[in-house]
Order: sequence, then C-alpha cells, then structure tokens
Amino acid sequence: MSLFYQPQIQQGVSFLDLEESRHAVQVLRLREGDAIQIVDGQGGVYTARITKADTKKCLFEVTEKKGIERRKCRVHIAIAPTKNIDRTEWFVEKAVEIGIEKITFIQCKHSERKVINIERIQKVAINAMKQSGQAWLPSIEGLVDFNAVLKGKEKEKFIAHVDSNNPLHLKDAYTKNSEYIVLIGPEGDFSQQELEQAQHNGFKKVSLGANRLRTETAALAACHILALQ
Amino acid sequence: MSLFYQPQIQQGVSFLDLEESRHAVQVLRLREGDAIQIVDGQGGVYTARITKADTKKCLFEVTEKKGIERRKCRVHIAIAPTKNIDRTEWFVEKAVEIGIEKITFIQCKHSERKVINIERIQKVAINAMKQSGQAWLPSIEGLVDFNAVLKGKEKEKFIAHVDSNNPLHLKDAYTKNSEYIVLIGPEGDFSQQELEQAQHNGFKKVSLGANRLRTETAALAACHILALQ
Repeated sequence: MSLFYQPQIQQGVSFLDLEESRHAVQVLRLREGDAIQIVDGQGGVYTARITKADTKKCLFEVTEKKGIERRKCRVHIAIAPTKNIDRTEWFVEKAVEIGIEKITFIQCKHSERKVINIERIQKVAINAMKQSGQAWLPSIEGLVDFNAVLKGKEKEKFIAHVDSNNPLHLKDAYTKNSEYIVLIGPEGDFSQQELEQAQHNGFKKVSLGANRLRTETAALAACHILALQ
Repeated sequence: MSLFYQPQIQQGVSFLDLEESRHAVQVLRLREGDAIQIVDGQGGVYTARITKADTKKCLFEVTEKKGIERRKCRVHIAIAPTKNIDRTEWFVEKAVEIGIEKITFIQCKHSERKVINIERIQKVAINAMKQSGQAWLPSIEGLVDFNAVLKGKEKEKFIAHVDSNNPLHLKDAYTKNSEYIVLIGPEGDFSQQELEQAQHNGFKKVSLGANRLRTETAALAACHILALQ
C-alpha cells in the first residue's frame, strides 16, 4: 500500500496536499476507492480510502487509525550546516532513518554557510521518514545563532570536541532514556569562546571516536551512538 | 603540513604518483625543500622533504617514519552496490571515516546494479582516509558473486535481515576484538535462497535497529555498531 504524509489529520484535514495529491493520482494513478496509508509525523498511522482522486486535492476517508509511540530517548542535534549543502541534506536523511527528534541549524563563528533552505531540508526529512516506515517527523529549525541552543531544557548536554587531554567518548557519557542535545561544529570547528560558553552552560565536551570526522559524519555518529542504547 | 598518499614507500618508492604530484606542485605550489606528510595505506606515516618539485613525478626524501597500529577488530562489509552509485560512494566515504578494513561488492539475485567502477571507489576511500587522518586503507574488491564471500575466514559472520520472529540486534550478537563479515543486501533484499545459503555457511541473521534502513545506511550502521566496542 502506498504511503503518504499529511499532517493535521487529527484536526480534521481529510485531503492530501498538492504534492502528495499529484504523486497519488498522477504518478501512482490511484483512483477513487483505492486504499492508502498515511502518516502524520506525530505518531499517527492511518489507513484510508480515496474518495476523490483529484490531482490537486486528493480527498480521503480514514478507515482505521493507530498511534505509534515515540522512542524513549530524545535526541536533538544542533549543527552548523556544511559549505556543501548536499552533505547537510545527506545527514538529515540518514539521521531520520537512524532516529532523531530535533535538528537545529546553528550559526557559528567559523561557519562557512550563512543560509539554509529549511523547506527543502524538511522535504528530505519527510521522504526519509516515509522511506524508513516511521510515523514521527523530527522538528527542524534554523538558522539560529549558536547562543540560542545553549539554554534548552535537555537533561544531558554535549559538545563534540576533540580534546586529547580528556577524551570522554559520548558512548560513556550519557545515561539511558534521557533527553540529549549534541552540538556539532562547522568545518572550521567551534571557536574557543563558543566552547567556553557551552561549557559555562553545562555542556560536556565529548569525543565521537578516534578518527577525525567530517561535520556531517560526526553528527550522524552522535545519532548512532545514542540510538544504540 | 599537507598530507599525501603513496603506497609502497617501504619498497623503495620515493616519488608521488601523477595525481598527487600535480596536487602538490601545481595546486599547493610546494617547492623543493618543503616538508610533506605521506601515508602509505598500510599503517606507515612518513615525514618527507621534496627533493624535486616536478608536476608529474614529485620526488621526496623520507626524514622520519612511524607506524600506526591497526585497530583490534576487523570489519568486512560485503554489500550489493546501490542503483544510484552516489549512495554507494557515500557509504564508502563514511565507512572509511568511521573505520572499516574491507569492502566487497557483491552481485545478488535482486541487485539493480551489475557494474561498478572500483578505481573510482578506491579514490573515494583514499580521500576519506586522508581527510580523516588515518594511515590504513581498506581493501576494496568486486563485483563478485554472492557465493564468493560465503567461505571467508572471518570468525563472526552476519547477514543483515529483518526477521520479526528473531530480532537479534548486531550489537548483542558480536564478541569484542574479533574479525567480522556483515552481508548487506540490495534494495530488493536477499533472495530466500541467498539467505539460506548464508545460514548454511554459518552466517547469523541480525537486525540493525527498529527502522527500515536503506542499503547504504544499513551498511554504515553495521560499521558504527562494530566501531563502538
């Protein structure tokens, strides 16, 4: 059965948006009466029947609904977007497949990229959610100033930073089933001031392994490590 | 100091190959007397001095050498290359960053891709090795028939397969500091016959997590899991 994404079904929305309608009716050639599956990105999985196969606004009727619980841990990655945006999009796709609850793009002193197309990034996340058969979509925000993520409510706060004097690995630094934020710096790394500000706000310096990792690899490594609990 | 790759320095080679020579002399504009660092992909790290800055054959003289030990575990991923080759190249880049000893591309019944440019893949691996500051290059082979990897000498053998009756996670299936092979199927998954052949040859079915992962994500997840010991 084909899988679609449509938020706010709980609030009474009973049609697919323009893009999903076109995909259902024009590409997949679904017709009135055909069964589809829809996720709302908030844990809702709906089985539905098409009631009007309109390429711009495909109407449906829900025949069954169920809720998928969120996993017990919450992972928030705050990352400086890479100069080559493909690398950032790749990170988003893979992070959604592996598991992530929130992504915030941050502007750091040494950031090489100053703009980001959040709408495009969200599409990557939606496709990855559907592809990997999940019902929860992470929230994605940015670009915000580095300081904006320092005051969050996460219980466990980490900043990825290679420190040969204190190589605490993230895998040995977290407690299970908690809420985490991990800061991942730009290609040029965090500035000394950013590192100090983070530590002043309760962030622990952590390593993600022995090798020097690219920004997007480091961010995915953090997701992987926290997903393996 | 700029980092270059040149195999066989141990065997007396004392010049960079065409591509590295061009990079050193034409792009980086290094000159006679400049110091460079070279890795040989077999654990050797050399500090050297350029003795002739030729764009086609840059000569050097080794001033210092040291050996980097290989990590204790050995990871061999045998993977069906993806239809979209970018996804396979992405996997190779990331696997090298995270840690991998051997990659074999396999031809499966449901493979969508029947050819692979190994030379191009090796370049991706070399760049990732240099980028991540490593001295060991994984061996990369293929395309070989699925059967060719079943008789290998690895001590622990796994085949990635989602089986809701027996969801043994790879993280709970391996013992530390050993030699592993993990088989990763194509987009259309392994055939029932391939699965049975693997099991017949001592391969254990393992899961890589709750979500449905793309081929390249599954392969990287296996590298991540085995790197975290």
